[in-house]
Amino acid sequence: MSEPKIRNPDYVARVGQSLASQAFMHQVLCATVGRVAPGEVEIIAEARHELLQPGGQVHGSVLAALADSAAGYAAQTLVGPELDIVTAEFKLNFMAPGFGERWIARGKVLRAGRTLSVCSADVFGVQGGEEKLVAHMLTTMMAVPAHD
Amino acid sequence: MSEPKIRNPDYVARVGQSLASQAFMHQVLCATVGRVAPGEVEIIAEARHELLQPGGQVHGSVLAALADSAAGYAAQTLVGPELDIVTAEFKLNFMAPGFGERWIARGKVLRAGRTLSVCSADVFGVQGGEEKLVAHMLTTMMAVPAHD
Amino acid sequence: MSEPKIRNPDYVARVGQSLASQAFMHQVLCATVGRVAPGEVEIIAEARHELLQPGGQVHGSVLAALADSAAGYAAQTLVGPELDIVTAEFKLNFMAPGFGERWIARGKVLRAGRTLSVCSADVFGVQGGEEKLVAHMLTTMMAVPAHD
Amino acid sequence: MSEPKIRNPDYVARVGQSLASQAFMHQVLCATVGRVAPGEVEIIAEARHELLQPGGQVHGSVLAALADSAAGYAAQTLVGPELDIVTAEFKLNFMAPGFGERWIARGKVLRAGRTLSVCSADVFGVQGGEEKLVAHMLTTMMAVPAHD
Repeated sequence: MSEPKIRNPDYVARVGQSLASQAFMHQVLCATVGRVAPGEVEIIAEARHELLQPGGQVHGSVLAALADSAAGYAAQTLVGPELDIVTAEFKLNFMAPGFGERWIARGKVLRAGRTLSVCSADVFGVQGGEEKLVAHMLTTMMAVPAHD
Repeated sequence: MSEPKIRNPDYVARVGQSLASQAFMHQVLCATVGRVAPGEVEIIAEARHELLQPGGQVHGSVLAALADSAAGYAAQTLVGPELDIVTAEFKLNFMAPGFGERWIARGKVLRAGRTLSVCSADVFGVQGGEEKLVAHMLTTMMAVPAHD
Repeated sequence: MSEPKIRNPDYVARVGQSLASQAFMHQVLCATVGRVAPGEVEIIAEARHELLQPGGQVHGSVLAALADSAAGYAAQTLVGPELDIVTAEFKLNFMAPGFGERWIARGKVLRAGRTLSVCSADVFGVQGGEEKLVAHMLTTMMAVPAHD
Repeated sequence: MSEPKIRNPDYVARVGQSLASQAFMHQVLCATVGRVAPGEVEIIAEARHELLQPGGQVHGSVLAALADSAAGYAAQTLVGPELDIVTAEFKLNFMAPGFGERWIARGKVLRAGRTLSVCSADVFGVQGGEEKLVAHMLTTMMAVPAHD
């Protein structure tokens, strides 16, 4: 993916508004948006007791939520304002126990299509300033007419 | 899968204890265990505002959490007490918008192996007593030594 | 999937014609069509030396080809004559070594959508009249305008 | 993956011998090994009529075979001579019609584990000296004792 075409100049605001509207991402995971660029989005969550498993690692579906959001918003940055991105399917591989003070999912678009986009996301656990890859997602996103 | 061998006679209790120990499943999703049989487990969650998207459907990663748990616990019912099941990877297809008063994930073991098990899970949204398939998962589970 | 709607009364012929047009399926794998019903298709291949690995089991991508074809043709049975089905993505789990005198892939539609369909396929190795599950596929199929 | 440890100094020969022993890869696809480095392997196939679909693009399962082999051999380069790599599962996304005079699959190891490795592979169609990404695979590989 080189030089993606920008169809919505307000793509950064669009990502922020969408995340804020998702109660699960905003209120439960307290996720925030990191870096946003055409075809690339970071979604971040801080460690909190209720997201952890007994051993201290984050629950896998939290990693799925961060990766799915980062990948989907990455696709959202490349479509016009009249389109929403929904997840058709995703696959997530767990690479290492999900320890961290914070987790950063970095989503990117591998193929931007009119209807279907293929995206990936790496999720890193951050501890003491060091990042470790804990999960990797490959996903198919679908563009649908936006709801007002 | 016919006539699976039971290696842990306390497999029902094991599933319940494990779910209770998972803060994310227990406190955040308020998930409960439904039917448990050898190689088959149901995990259930009730609709609550913070799990929903703006349109009223459940957030996809909640469906992932339910499906992953149901599939993993299905594999857990078939291993001895000295083994824990962890998720190596999963793939989730979204089949319909996740509307429901309640969601039921039904996991089952497709192939029980010494190290790797292959499981699937169907997730249904329940409204007015009717069940609708909203997501389907295919996943690879791995047996690891249990922590005391 | 109950009572799928038939939009192409010639769906059986369509499957046969399509398989015959695929040199790889027809000439390389010598695959044939088994049972065809709305939303369900069988694709069969016989063992031949060049499809086998050194240990005698079939090469995994032959199982992928059979499963993908069975799943895609299952989706094809449910669309009108103006549409072709193409594979957007698939996931294949290997369940047992692929021994067999013959392999049968049984594809079925889990969700028939206007644009995207979700299908699965089981692949069985047949030896001495007994079937053994050797692989399972979950896949996303896309309807596109048919070429004349 | 930085500075992977080499446990088999003959890893290049191992990849070549393995490909030569696979009748399906060697005789049917006429695949060859390209660049081999620790954790990275290229597998290449030339266009031939029997690998093509009616429209001229390669059959998807040929891309699957190349990607699976490249990813699996990438994992093979990082294990000792006493271990073989087998595919537990893979997911393949199709990104563009598979046109080409030749296809190159580039596999790499994302996570090298004792039992499970996670790998990806990009498959490019080459036409007139230009490469185009036509498919992307994410896969879980398993190390098993090598057969003599």
